[in-house]
Amino acid sequence: MAPATILPHDSAAMDRQTGTESLPGLHIIGLGLGDELDITLRGLNLVKSASDVFLEAYTSILSVPVESLQKLYGRQVTIADREFVEERAEIILDAAARPGGAAFLVVGDPFGATTHSDLWLRARERSIPVSVVHNASIMNAVAVTGLQLYRFGQAISICFWTETDRPTSYYPKLVANRQQGVHTLCLLDIKVKEPSLESLARGKKVYEPPRYMTINQAVEQLLEIDALLGSNELEENSMAVGVARIGQLDQIIRYATLAELKKTDFGPPLHSLIIPARDLHFHELEVLNCFKSAT
Amino acid sequence: MAPATILPHDSAAMDRQTGTESLPGLHIIGLGLGDELDITLRGLNLVKSASDVFLEAYTSILSVPVESLQKLYGRQVTIADREFVEERAEIILDAAARPGGAAFLVVGDPFGATTHSDLWLRARERSIPVSVVHNASIMNAVAVTGLQLYRFGQAISICFWTETDRPTSYYPKLVANRQQGVHTLCLLDIKVKEPSLESLARGKKVYEPPRYMTINQAVEQLLEIDALLGSNELEENSMAVGVARIGQLDQIIRYATLAELKKTDFGPPLHSLIIPARDLHFHELEVLNCFKSAT
Repeated sequence: MAPATILPHDSAAMDRQTGTESLPGLHIIGLGLGDELDITLRGLNLVKSASDVFLEAYTSILSVPVESLQKLYGRQVTIADREFVEERAEIILDAAARPGGAAFLVVGDPFGATTHSDLWLRARERSIPVSVVHNASIMNAVAVTGLQLYRFGQAISICFWTETDRPTSYYPKLVANRQQGVHTLCLLDIKVKEPSLESLARGKKVYEPPRYMTINQAVEQLLEIDALLGSNELEENSMAVGVARIGQLDQIIRYATLAELKKTDFGPPLHSLIIPARDLHFHELEVLNCFKSAT
Repeated sequence: MAPATILPHDSAAMDRQTGTESLPGLHIIGLGLGDELDITLRGLNLVKSASDVFLEAYTSILSVPVESLQKLYGRQVTIADREFVEERAEIILDAAARPGGAAFLVVGDPFGATTHSDLWLRARERSIPVSVVHNASIMNAVAVTGLQLYRFGQAISICFWTETDRPTSYYPKLVANRQQGVHTLCLLDIKVKEPSLESLARGKKVYEPPRYMTINQAVEQLLEIDALLGSNELEENSMAVGVARIGQLDQIIRYATLAELKKTDFGPPLHSLIIPARDLHFHELEVLNCFKSAT
């Protein structure tokens, strides 16, 4: 039998388990969905022995101020925005090459966003061992709604429309999922530290205030696209599930018609929307019905 | 605007955050994929203050002996097999109604398996607050292969064939995923504490030894079904990804042809198999190519 590929990070991680050494390495650590207490013990140990600690702060948002992390870790945390990670990754990799390595913190699970595969590849190119500490992400936590994970088709991302760009290309995927009898998780757009078009034209970046798509906006856009494309897949009376701040102490889940979801105040970000399959299992409905509005 | 539904567990969880009270409650806590260090701080706090601690031990397997958990927690852990959870759930719920509540530990994320929704519903029926502590599961950790999570279609479960029952019903889902251009995660069968048919006939349960489907077996079965149904979707030369013990220190990932995967020794359970989309993104391939065999 051919020997299988063993990940390069394994031996380093195993040495680290002994606690006697602080080897170099890039430690990509998921923080989960809630606050500072959602880090795993494995993650916390790596943070404490790391040479430097970075927090990726653009593909998702942390529900607590960075000071809460610093207090728990007893460490300084450097916030790494998109520019930092994409243009100054060498700073992170240099730290990773030092004893203790670099802890690179990501809200949710480390590989929700593509960018982190890039960092992983760049570390490998420099022969820096990489270890990954998994955690919860929206992609698995949605099962708390009662909808069964293995009945989810591909997820779609609903992006903000602009005056000139109104993409609808994701909608056929939702329709295909419904035809296949599976649920669709809709991830809603996040715009953080985006340079304004006007400022780019002037050659000096000025950033737009952060924007997070609400469930209300997503529902409106989906209904508009359905009419635009003549899909007849969704209508005001279609049932769907709105989830806000999932995994946080004040999470909200609501199972209601799109018309009702469009009017519901779900509070602060992040919001997501689930368009369930046309037919639901009895067990799924039993749980979902607990999330109908009490009004 | 209509007020949104707030989960009943929120207020209890928030009180618990203060650390001054040990309120009753059913705490469904994900342990993640690796060993005892993959619990979150939030989960550990709940375990420590719980009246009783149960470990669900039949939808997945723990990579360490239960004693490792007990040592870390400083608590006795009761192993709850399928019979226990389904037939004696009242024991868990009675504990949940006591101060500190019941910690119900689940490998991976709490809602990977349907059964736990039942427990959640039964707790609600008894007006016991429920809190959920999410963690990593195979459903999101697979992104470590480089395959993008939002390009996964519905997952399928490949079950052991018996002499009389050779189900193929999941295969069309895989074919539909390929037609839609998405990846398929194949979860492989686990048979733990299954009474033997012979013993059932005699009226006294005797249990079969536990069995875990290997990647080798899964590949063989998929190729056999493809031929049987005349699907022409997969062949010996199709590329796929075998992942074993994902999230554990000795995890193995291998990107190779089905013929090669069929011969690869992936070691102890759990194994999973990913049949990628027909076309891969450049970024996906870049990472996957790091997992080709070094032979």
